[in-house]
Amino acid sequence: MHVTWDVYHGDTQLLSYVPTIKEILYRIVDELQLTKVNESFKQFEPIGVTGFILLEESHVSIHTWPEHQFAAIDIFSCRAFDQQKIEVLLKKAFHSDKIITKSIPRGEHVNSPISKAI
Amino acid sequence: MHVTWDVYHGDTQLLSYVPTIKEILYRIVDELQLTKVNESFKQFEPIGVTGFILLEESHVSIHTWPEHQFAAIDIFSCRAFDQQKIEVLLKKAFHSDKIITKSIPRGEHVNSPISKAI
Repeated sequence: MHVTWDVYHGDTQLLSYVPTIKEILYRIVDELQLTKVNESFKQFEPIGVTGFILLEESHVSIHTWPEHQFAAIDIFSCRAFDQQKIEVLLKKAFHSDKIITKSIPRGEHVNSPISKAI
Repeated sequence: MHVTWDVYHGDTQLLSYVPTIKEILYRIVDELQLTKVNESFKQFEPIGVTGFILLEESHVSIHTWPEHQFAAIDIFSCRAFDQQKIEVLLKKAFHSDKIITKSIPRGEHVNSPISKAI
């Protein structure tokens, strides 16, 4: 399951710095009860963040453009999850009124259900 | 620009261990002349890899299921790049005869061109 969220009209301040972004990504990981393996965040000067959390067989990533009040988030996960719940979480977290969610099917041509192998 | 590649019928051995996967991801980063910020790889037991390279304003990720001869790769980049070139590289690298490439538009509703802000 690979889902992307494009967050528009977000609060510039909330999109600008690593500590806030990290805290929001941690909330997503908690919400979905995922297991963190590693993480990396980069602060752009003067504002803007790029970051990822590597999870067991999956990942969460974020790239923010505070000057456009925009953030791009994606989650790749071998377990099904509630993407609507994450949309609500992101809307609240970034004070956004517009989020575009996309679900990208991955590995549809694998013969047997991939989740069973994990 | 967010592009995903689903690699089918890959060589199980080539999909199994971190050193090979890391080397293939490095080749992608070199090919696209991207700048690495950080990276993280995890070896699953007995086989399977998940990995991530954080780039300047972008990322490359990979998750492999050698038992299904399958790998899921994605690149998120604020710069345009030649996705066909990467498909060819992946085909050769994993000895695959079937790759499904998908391009996911991101941030289409941002008013001004996002790349200009970087």
